[in-house]
Amino acid sequence: MLGSMMKQELLISDLIVHAGKYHADTEIVSRETTGELNVTNWSAVAAASRRLASALGTLGLEQGDRVATLAWNNHRHLKTWFAVSGGGMVCHTLNPRLPPEQFIFICNDAGDRAILFDKTFMPLITATKAQLKTIEHFIFMGARDEDVVAALPEAVFFDELIEEGDDGYEWPRISENTACSLCYTSGTTGNPKGVLYYHRSTMIHTFAISLPDALALSASETILPVVPMFHANAWGIPYAAAMTGAKLVMPGPMLDGDSLLGLIDDQKVTLALGVPTIWMMLLASAEKNGSRMATLRRNVIGGSAAAPSMIAAFRDLYDCDTIHAWGMTETSPLGTANLPKGKHADLDAEAMALLRLGQGRPPFGIDLRIVDDEGRPLPHDGEAQGALQCRGHWVVETYFGKEAAATTDDGWFDTGDVSSIDADGFMVIRDRTKDIIKSGGEWISSVDLENIAVSHPGVAMAAAIGAAHPKWDERPIVIAVKAEGADPSEGEIIAMYDGKVASWQVPDAVVFTDEIPLNATGKMLKNQLRARFGNTLIERGV
Amino acid sequence: MLGSMMKQELLISDLIVHAGKYHADTEIVSRETTGELNVTNWSAVAAASRRLASALGTLGLEQGDRVATLAWNNHRHLKTWFAVSGGGMVCHTLNPRLPPEQFIFICNDAGDRAILFDKTFMPLITATKAQLKTIEHFIFMGARDEDVVAALPEAVFFDELIEEGDDGYEWPRISENTACSLCYTSGTTGNPKGVLYYHRSTMIHTFAISLPDALALSASETILPVVPMFHANAWGIPYAAAMTGAKLVMPGPMLDGDSLLGLIDDQKVTLALGVPTIWMMLLASAEKNGSRMATLRRNVIGGSAAAPSMIAAFRDLYDCDTIHAWGMTETSPLGTANLPKGKHADLDAEAMALLRLGQGRPPFGIDLRIVDDEGRPLPHDGEAQGALQCRGHWVVETYFGKEAAATTDDGWFDTGDVSSIDADGFMVIRDRTKDIIKSGGEWISSVDLENIAVSHPGVAMAAAIGAAHPKWDERPIVIAVKAEGADPSEGEIIAMYDGKVASWQVPDAVVFTDEIPLNATGKMLKNQLRARFGNTLIERGV
Repeated sequence: MLGSMMKQELLISDLIVHAGKYHADTEIVSRETTGELNVTNWSAVAAASRRLASALGTLGLEQGDRVATLAWNNHRHLKTWFAVSGGGMVCHTLNPRLPPEQFIFICNDAGDRAILFDKTFMPLITATKAQLKTIEHFIFMGARDEDVVAALPEAVFFDELIEEGDDGYEWPRISENTACSLCYTSGTTGNPKGVLYYHRSTMIHTFAISLPDALALSASETILPVVPMFHANAWGIPYAAAMTGAKLVMPGPMLDGDSLLGLIDDQKVTLALGVPTIWMMLLASAEKNGSRMATLRRNVIGGSAAAPSMIAAFRDLYDCDTIHAWGMTETSPLGTANLPKGKHADLDAEAMALLRLGQGRPPFGIDLRIVDDEGRPLPHDGEAQGALQCRGHWVVETYFGKEAAATTDDGWFDTGDVSSIDADGFMVIRDRTKDIIKSGGEWISSVDLENIAVSHPGVAMAAAIGAAHPKWDERPIVIAVKAEGADPSEGEIIAMYDGKVASWQVPDAVVFTDEIPLNATGKMLKNQLRARFGNTLIERGV
Repeated sequence: MLGSMMKQELLISDLIVHAGKYHADTEIVSRETTGELNVTNWSAVAAASRRLASALGTLGLEQGDRVATLAWNNHRHLKTWFAVSGGGMVCHTLNPRLPPEQFIFICNDAGDRAILFDKTFMPLITATKAQLKTIEHFIFMGARDEDVVAALPEAVFFDELIEEGDDGYEWPRISENTACSLCYTSGTTGNPKGVLYYHRSTMIHTFAISLPDALALSASETILPVVPMFHANAWGIPYAAAMTGAKLVMPGPMLDGDSLLGLIDDQKVTLALGVPTIWMMLLASAEKNGSRMATLRRNVIGGSAAAPSMIAAFRDLYDCDTIHAWGMTETSPLGTANLPKGKHADLDAEAMALLRLGQGRPPFGIDLRIVDDEGRPLPHDGEAQGALQCRGHWVVETYFGKEAAATTDDGWFDTGDVSSIDADGFMVIRDRTKDIIKSGGEWISSVDLENIAVSHPGVAMAAAIGAAHPKWDERPIVIAVKAEGADPSEGEIIAMYDGKVASWQVPDAVVFTDEIPLNATGKMLKNQLRARFGNTLIERGV
């Protein structure tokens, strides 16, 4: 028996129609590439999105076509998102920070037919243009600009497209299973892979991230998404702001502490979202400028965990609640958010701070499990560590253009993280799967061992890896760089672990080296360390 | 091009799986029909729901079968909801307050194959049993009870079904378009009509009502739904509590002020929901008992608007924010909720109180319009009044068992209310469509005229109706009952309108009468008044 309520598709175009109608005069403030502030509102963004969608059709773009963006967080990028997805095309957000060869690979792999770009990225466009095989339309995000015409004669201009667009354009009532957007993973190994979102997955995600125990979004919020729109959809904020009628403040290219602080104070930002490095710069700027960041009530941290001292600074100095969230491009991205439950109301400050350090629990719509090496589920007891897998309405099933599923045989996506999950559903990331040390069937977190090593004042940097061992398969060892002028002994560092980890988790050796190789984003390249130091224990004759 | 994220149906069974897994030990407290408190938790409710679903299958019930409930808000009713809907059957909540002939009509119209009932309703069951043509299974919501066996030998017992049920039962992965529940409208005219919800409509509604600008539900809330589960799904709270992991406190049959106050204080309730009469009783009890209702932060009022003095009492005496919400059985029920926007942050107390008096604005997923007599949309300017129509993911399309759509030709559901909507989307109900007075093409709210008449100390009750008029079609007149010992004149009452309404809205006559007929829920029967007094002006020779 079928229900007999109205049946409507869940479409992104409905978000901008809603915001334009019910939150017409709510402001969208954004920093232009020139540094100026642009102020518009949801009603104007809705109208511009319609006009742009019609103009893209006039250019010859059709439903299903991939339309790329290479842009900062600003009003034109926002309009592009709604125009492209709302019009039935696929909005492909490109990361301008990638090496040019990856950028070219991704454009070609996606088969982008058009690209919209901010002026900042003109050099990247002109340098790679000859190798972008599928792009027919280069759309400059701004007014007509003679510099652009000179460098790229075929360019068309965003502001002219909006001008020429049809204000009477009506959003197509497409299927909610239609692809809406595309984002490539950063790809630390192999070529980047595309995650192809669809309207339904995005819409359900938008509801879920707006819930009180996720990002808690409403029409009384003013949101500053520092996280870029090309980074896992700015964690879904542009969609969710439209759904809930929030004011948006978009920082454009100026991501330094002083610029962000200025936006927070001038625009009365209540909620800001970004990675830890952003918050370090913001705290420094607030201290320097003597700002109390009076309106900022919450900041959300993703990407990696924040230091307890940073969380404490936001809480104690600025009365701002720092919320950890975890997710990936493959999870749209929200997987978990760390909000306490009613049962935690009576926790003391120390226990609460410890709870809030983890990655949190999944909203309805995401299910998590941890599994051992054979794929057997492990208990959610806060102790057991296993490969973190997830499934849900907004988790990848297959990468763009691939035949093989991105999931296990029984339908779970393996995140590549090693985690524990407690009985309340709170998840803590312990390591990356490839970095965990497997000693006699037990898993030892390299991250935990590294944190202890660097707490020695004589250690500047440390990496823990598994070294081959005839009996235990692997045993942990630490590769350490001495602090300038310091000369700690191996025994001193080993002694640091006493009482901090179980005895079988204590590293078997510490090897000093001059330098630990890092990748472009500052992560230690442990595969190089494993190649170089993986036989340390055997060489030492254990 | 289709997206390639995982595709899962939106199913009610997933709510209870989520709550059982991620909010296992969060309590469900309920008042038994005997008056005792039962304490269980989401994990146990999840297990019992699975067992009950399997046991209902053993009884011979199949997907699509209607399974009725006649029960208070309590843990067995909650388990029944998840078991029946989760199992692919249709949970039909019956209103025990209906006259027996309507109750019989509704059971037969729905074709209920089974009924689950609390002990309170045994007399209704035994009195009507012979006329309930389709019910094969009478399930008593409790342990085996010899009184029940004596009165209803064929009864089976809920607690025994749970006992016998299969704990390994797995929820069927049915289509999200499958009907999940059925609720009949109260039917002030004609026979009651059934609204047949489905999993998808219910699930999207559940997300929407949990948002910060609707009911703002989370795992840190303890929710007391005083609104019955047989009244428009308890406004969706049981589903939303499972989605968000809230603690539920269910009042069973004891809805008096002292009982509710006891639950609020003992169970640390943070949010309570119900109709205005409930809150009057609660305020009286709190005053009498000297309770500060320290944990209660919000109460939600639906059904009809609350008096400003009541809202002020909750705000000023108990630091509790009263939130108006509006909806109908036909809208699942949430249509609007009244939460301010960021732009209202600087309103003074008086302006804010006025804003909060209205019915509020729709969440994403509901669209509203007001139309004139010819169905032409009217502006959303806060002034124009028109018939309120809505559409959206959880609005009725067709009544149960009917062929004809419940909607206009262009797909909107007419609510039967007359409203205005302002530019910010805030809706105010002005009148019922059938009660509005249409004078020379202009609409005059009967409610507004009545409020002014009863503000005269000599008037105990007043009804404004449209009286036939040769020139204006209708003109407003007031039917008034004098207060005991008072003897106001017609002229005195007419003078009350001076400066309060436009001159053309001032009633043409006041007719005194001894009594205004009321229906069972205390609403004035204006059709009887129109029959009796509709020719007053013609008789007076205008």
